[in-house]
Amino acid sequence: MRYHRIPDETIRRLPIYLRGLLFLLERGRKSVSSRDLAEFIGTYPWQIRKDFSYFGDFGVRGVGYDIEKLAKEIKRILKLDVIQKAALVGVGNLGSAVLAYPGFAIYGFDVAVAFDVDPKKVGKKIKDIVIKDVSNIQVLKKRKIKLGIIAVPRQAAQKTADELVKAGITGILNFSPCYVTVPKKVKVITIDIAMDLARLPYYMPTN
Amino acid sequence: MRYHRIPDETIRRLPIYLRGLLFLLERGRKSVSSRDLAEFIGTYPWQIRKDFSYFGDFGVRGVGYDIEKLAKEIKRILKLDVIQKAALVGVGNLGSAVLAYPGFAIYGFDVAVAFDVDPKKVGKKIKDIVIKDVSNIQVLKKRKIKLGIIAVPRQAAQKTADELVKAGITGILNFSPCYVTVPKKVKVITIDIAMDLARLPYYMPTN
Repeated sequence: MRYHRIPDETIRRLPIYLRGLLFLLERGRKSVSSRDLAEFIGTYPWQIRKDFSYFGDFGVRGVGYDIEKLAKEIKRILKLDVIQKAALVGVGNLGSAVLAYPGFAIYGFDVAVAFDVDPKKVGKKIKDIVIKDVSNIQVLKKRKIKLGIIAVPRQAAQKTADELVKAGITGILNFSPCYVTVPKKVKVITIDIAMDLARLPYYMPTN
Repeated sequence: MRYHRIPDETIRRLPIYLRGLLFLLERGRKSVSSRDLAEFIGTYPWQIRKDFSYFGDFGVRGVGYDIEKLAKEIKRILKLDVIQKAALVGVGNLGSAVLAYPGFAIYGFDVAVAFDVDPKKVGKKIKDIVIKDVSNIQVLKKRKIKLGIIAVPRQAAQKTADELVKAGITGILNFSPCYVTVPKKVKVITIDIAMDLARLPYYMPTN
């Protein structure tokens, strides 16, 4: 079954739900109401019910959602039901944080290879990953890695995106604070670790 | 004027628009159509028009939006029209990336003080910020800093949130991969640098 009709905004929220569900599962919970899940992750029950309505009926009135079943279904929709290998380019502060971050495994990602241009970094190991020189980026083709993470300085971002595309990458998570241009068949998500801070003052008391 | 009626989903997108507009301004552009802006930041023209409709009419048919005026208005709505000072707790890889990240200044943030528990880090300088021992966190009250950024390991996140709240913080950006509980008057946004990767496979070709 395909889910072409799920709106992008719902897709954007599915990882938030998935993470919440996995944390609840970790705490031994079996089921959760839309109200409790909403409070836990900080959204509205109606939003959750509306989003879940796009892909079937997982709630039982008075009992709530079966957490394990729902998490599995969300993973399937997001194509996270198989381990996805990813390549990191740029092992500065942010890149090192990416390699050390436990959060990628939660969603089934394995940051399996890392590149940098700095000869002082090449050959070093972070979390069992040996940093390779970026000139070896074509290895991604042979290893069939399709996901790339860009964590290079802004001025190197476009060049890095071009190289990743040439190496067969079809999905890019871009941490550089700029936009990159790629062929239509490649999906880029640019994220900005400052952006979420930008909507905090709106919600804070003024005095 | 207050904008109580702007939906959270629109507020979530305003920083994305703001960043796009500021980049266009930097490139010397004066005006932009909803179509061009949508393509630049990767969304739909109708989404932009709908979001902007909540706070007035900035478009001129055939000319587009006045970039400077629109950016200024978005800043005002998000309360980013004054410099907002923020405090960082946790100067590991991710915290160091936060201190070095040029993106916060784009939105008018100044990460003005940083804390850590590690005696080896306390007293060191990153980007003119001297890292302080976290026992001095009450200084935030005197300095009237209201924004806190948590970048500590998961198991220390709740304790850090409690300390920030005690020091008068009313808005928290939480980078730790867990949820924290705070009093109702405090707004927390938990972000997960892996979460955006989680919706990439959905959009990638399967072969």
